[in-house]
Amino acid sequence: MSKTIELAQHLEKLHINNMYKSDFYWTWDKTDEELDAIFTVADALRDLRERNKSTRIFDSGLGISIFRDNSTRTRFSFASACNLLGLEVQDLDEKKSQIAHGETVRETANMVSFMADVIGIRDDMFIGEGHKYQKTFMDAVKEGYRDGILEQQPTLVNLQCDVDHPTQCMADMLHIIHHFGGVENLKGKKLAMTWAYSPSYGKPLSVPQGVIGLMTRFGMNVVLAHPEGYDVMPEVEDIARKNAAATGGSYQKAATMEEAFADADIVYPKSWAPFAAMEERTKLYQAGDQAGIDALEQKLLAQNAEHKGWTCSEDMMKRTRNGSALYLHCLPADITGLSCPEGEVDNSVFDRYLVPLYKQASYKPYVIAAMILMSKVKDPVSALMAMDAAGKRKLF
Amino acid sequence: MSKTIELAQHLEKLHINNMYKSDFYWTWDKTDEELDAIFTVADALRDLRERNKSTRIFDSGLGISIFRDNSTRTRFSFASACNLLGLEVQDLDEKKSQIAHGETVRETANMVSFMADVIGIRDDMFIGEGHKYQKTFMDAVKEGYRDGILEQQPTLVNLQCDVDHPTQCMADMLHIIHHFGGVENLKGKKLAMTWAYSPSYGKPLSVPQGVIGLMTRFGMNVVLAHPEGYDVMPEVEDIARKNAAATGGSYQKAATMEEAFADADIVYPKSWAPFAAMEERTKLYQAGDQAGIDALEQKLLAQNAEHKGWTCSEDMMKRTRNGSALYLHCLPADITGLSCPEGEVDNSVFDRYLVPLYKQASYKPYVIAAMILMSKVKDPVSALMAMDAAGKRKLF
Amino acid sequence: MSKTIELAQHLEKLHINNMYKSDFYWTWDKTDEELDAIFTVADALRDLRERNKSTRIFDSGLGISIFRDNSTRTRFSFASACNLLGLEVQDLDEKKSQIAHGETVRETANMVSFMADVIGIRDDMFIGEGHKYQKTFMDAVKEGYRDGILEQQPTLVNLQCDVDHPTQCMADMLHIIHHFGGVENLKGKKLAMTWAYSPSYGKPLSVPQGVIGLMTRFGMNVVLAHPEGYDVMPEVEDIARKNAAATGGSYQKAATMEEAFADADIVYPKSWAPFAAMEERTKLYQAGDQAGIDALEQKLLAQNAEHKGWTCSEDMMKRTRNGSALYLHCLPADITGLSCPEGEVDNSVFDRYLVPLYKQASYKPYVIAAMILMSKVKDPVSALMAMDAAGKRKLF
Repeated sequence: MSKTIELAQHLEKLHINNMYKSDFYWTWDKTDEELDAIFTVADALRDLRERNKSTRIFDSGLGISIFRDNSTRTRFSFASACNLLGLEVQDLDEKKSQIAHGETVRETANMVSFMADVIGIRDDMFIGEGHKYQKTFMDAVKEGYRDGILEQQPTLVNLQCDVDHPTQCMADMLHIIHHFGGVENLKGKKLAMTWAYSPSYGKPLSVPQGVIGLMTRFGMNVVLAHPEGYDVMPEVEDIARKNAAATGGSYQKAATMEEAFADADIVYPKSWAPFAAMEERTKLYQAGDQAGIDALEQKLLAQNAEHKGWTCSEDMMKRTRNGSALYLHCLPADITGLSCPEGEVDNSVFDRYLVPLYKQASYKPYVIAAMILMSKVKDPVSALMAMDAAGKRKLF
Repeated sequence: MSKTIELAQHLEKLHINNMYKSDFYWTWDKTDEELDAIFTVADALRDLRERNKSTRIFDSGLGISIFRDNSTRTRFSFASACNLLGLEVQDLDEKKSQIAHGETVRETANMVSFMADVIGIRDDMFIGEGHKYQKTFMDAVKEGYRDGILEQQPTLVNLQCDVDHPTQCMADMLHIIHHFGGVENLKGKKLAMTWAYSPSYGKPLSVPQGVIGLMTRFGMNVVLAHPEGYDVMPEVEDIARKNAAATGGSYQKAATMEEAFADADIVYPKSWAPFAAMEERTKLYQAGDQAGIDALEQKLLAQNAEHKGWTCSEDMMKRTRNGSALYLHCLPADITGLSCPEGEVDNSVFDRYLVPLYKQASYKPYVIAAMILMSKVKDPVSALMAMDAAGKRKLF
Repeated sequence: MSKTIELAQHLEKLHINNMYKSDFYWTWDKTDEELDAIFTVADALRDLRERNKSTRIFDSGLGISIFRDNSTRTRFSFASACNLLGLEVQDLDEKKSQIAHGETVRETANMVSFMADVIGIRDDMFIGEGHKYQKTFMDAVKEGYRDGILEQQPTLVNLQCDVDHPTQCMADMLHIIHHFGGVENLKGKKLAMTWAYSPSYGKPLSVPQGVIGLMTRFGMNVVLAHPEGYDVMPEVEDIARKNAAATGGSYQKAATMEEAFADADIVYPKSWAPFAAMEERTKLYQAGDQAGIDALEQKLLAQNAEHKGWTCSEDMMKRTRNGSALYLHCLPADITGLSCPEGEVDNSVFDRYLVPLYKQASYKPYVIAAMILMSKVKDPVSALMAMDAAGKRKLF
């Protein structure tokens, strides 16, 4: 029996009826079994590909991508996932489009979705804006489908908003699961999600938020640590606490990177922007005050520079369990002595973890493809079985 | 019997032999039966898609798009149409290309067409230039095919030139046909194509020209109205008059928007640039006089502002048949109080017609796909029958 | 028996086992039989396409393109080749990506290659840089494959580096072979690869280098001519000499265009930059000295202008065999009186050779597709046989 058949049999036991035609905004919208389904399908698709089996569920169709922020990894992961399933990517490049000043999101959403099966949106730059844009967009296409404008209802894959970065965190989590040999081995493991110094401009909060919102669900002890002023959204911390209470894990704060790293099994040190500053930035954005945004940027860089001690050095790594915690990063990292004089991580640490880091990233296309498959196919068990049985090869 | 089979049987009765390997420049190049064929195939493709049937006629192949002006709607419509039939879109972005100063259109045309099945071109900015470019391009690939350079003869879909915007007007027309329950119900209906004020820069004349050139062929009474100086190309008005005479409709001019709207069944109020100014603009363009173009732009905006009364207000709509004419727009519209202080249409009018407006736009991908299918497939009746009969699904 | 079957039978006799999973950097890395295999498969793919046979060897998959210099011809050739075989092109646009200052090529290479079957790279701007970048990139993905990061090992098609331009020169060569009716007719033919004046900025050396590195392998007498200071890389001249010695051809230098053209059967006059200047330019580039690069450009243009006599005029063409040598150019050419006042070639000469020039270019997509097929398919003979036998049509 192939691995895919085993996985399909596991999938059959899960309660996943609500996933068909559903959007993927945040991991905490989904039940544990629904997340399990994503991981299961991701592994199955990878197994099928390894055995040169065609994984197309689409004969034709479009995946529309909207990147309101630059992207390489997520762009290629989305394109790969779409291609794996038979969709062609069509990117909405707002610079090349005729989106008039004042054209509503509702109009744009309908105009690009006539043949869209999937919509992937990255909008992570402004607190309170990213998710709102995705929601407005998807409400519009749902209405368009109901009104007979669109022939099919496109579904969303959130490619990063201001709140969560689910394709990243699900890929991270699948990497952890495989690294430790299964979910059952994660109970009691300590994961340290910490801030780290970066000389570059304030990054989105969606990765730390996504990590504490997801990884508190697997029985692990999740610790968040950051300098004063770098809090994450309190709503997400509430979710982390509830998750931990419900699934036998824990969620705690630590005041220092040293404390967070102590005996950690997994560390995820990365930079993000101070929350209050990000809220101020949103107000400046809404007021169209670019000069104000630029001034704020300088202030944020100065504030960052007060916390250069928050770095994943060799000394810091020695504090982790046996000095060899699994080091995670969503990439690209600011690497001390390689990409900048002082950054998030020592070059020697980063270099030692290069292969696992790239493996971590390699799960993203499969996670995205699994999200798409679960929302587009009514009977995913049969779909996997059919792919496994069919003689259709990916490459001659 | 499925709707597709019915439509295929209708198609069988039409004289459409000249469509194979033909280009689509202007609707008035085509016979009534040829236009009927486009509508018929568009409806059939939509029916097949609704029933999750594969509509691929291509196993591989490229649709080349050239947008010499920004575009969202038409770009995504062309991409959707190509994907629906199995073609991949490859966009010729003149900024990223090595098109040398002085490289001939003939050379570019051949160099991008080695595997091109379809060419879609939008070039609408300069009177006397857009169609010329399309013609030069297509003559070159035809010659390339004859000379054995190209393995196949690519065919054109005009995605808007300076004279006509056939994919838009055919989509508009298909929307009208379905709205009124069939071509046979259009006899005697009054359609008002009118200018409307816009605070934005002079728009192409191809939509009003395309509308009077096409919609005079269905027994309707078509009325064109615009302020002094905003005439359309006289050659197209001649065509409108001849069409009307030949098909039992009528073509008339009105001096005011009020007169045009009186008892109209369909209204299409939108902005366009003054003809003489557009000719002057072409001369400045040919002379490379950008400063002159910018100065002209200011003059045009001032000229527009003299006619702010030409707007599709609630009062204006009340003059139409039962106050409830079908409102059309090619989008995006300049909406008073939403996208600008004073524009082409009141927000309340636009908002009331949102669903029909988006439906109007939703026909464009199918119309483009039908144009492609009719020019690439020798026996379109068999193609539709085969798609209907085949078990191949669009999505698992 | 179809032409494809004949070609497959020829392929069967060649020693081509080393081509599977191999990269294509330079033609001189490949044996004569391996080059023969590329030509054979290119011809077979063209024959299959002419007979409306599906040539897809991929059910899904990505061809990643990286153009670090503008491109039309090569971009569309690569896209066409990928499409012909069933791959979707995903372009890495470095401007839209999040490639951080300092992100390693190794990281980028892995991040874009999760589902990449083929990588096409153009990087020809700086002597000593282009090939290095390609090599670093491909070493990284090979390592990524070994380490289990990538599910498949992507292979390279060099779309032009600082040393060779193999897809161009192989297309040129296939054109020559067909023009003269077979490789067996090339023995003793004289080919003149010469510099020609251009008013535009110093062009890469990879075309003349690629030409002398490849065309010395077919028994022809290859002559290189250029003004003083416009030498090509000495390593490539060594290869040309060795090739000639091994295959019965010759490689010689001529001091003037007149001498090179005398009784030539084939002429390839085109501009390139002076070698020493290109080396100086690389140093300025490495030092980030843009002002220095701009100053150098002015100097190079002045240096070019001293050699305006090096032009493919009608008089020059008269010196060739019967005044009617086969004229080659990789396009776009600087054409005297058409694209510039004084350039590489007289308008009347260029115009007379337009059809053969475009045919020359038309081989490139097939050559690229053949390179991909030979590196991705273990048993290319069976693949061709299967395509020939299958009833699957390219277009309905």
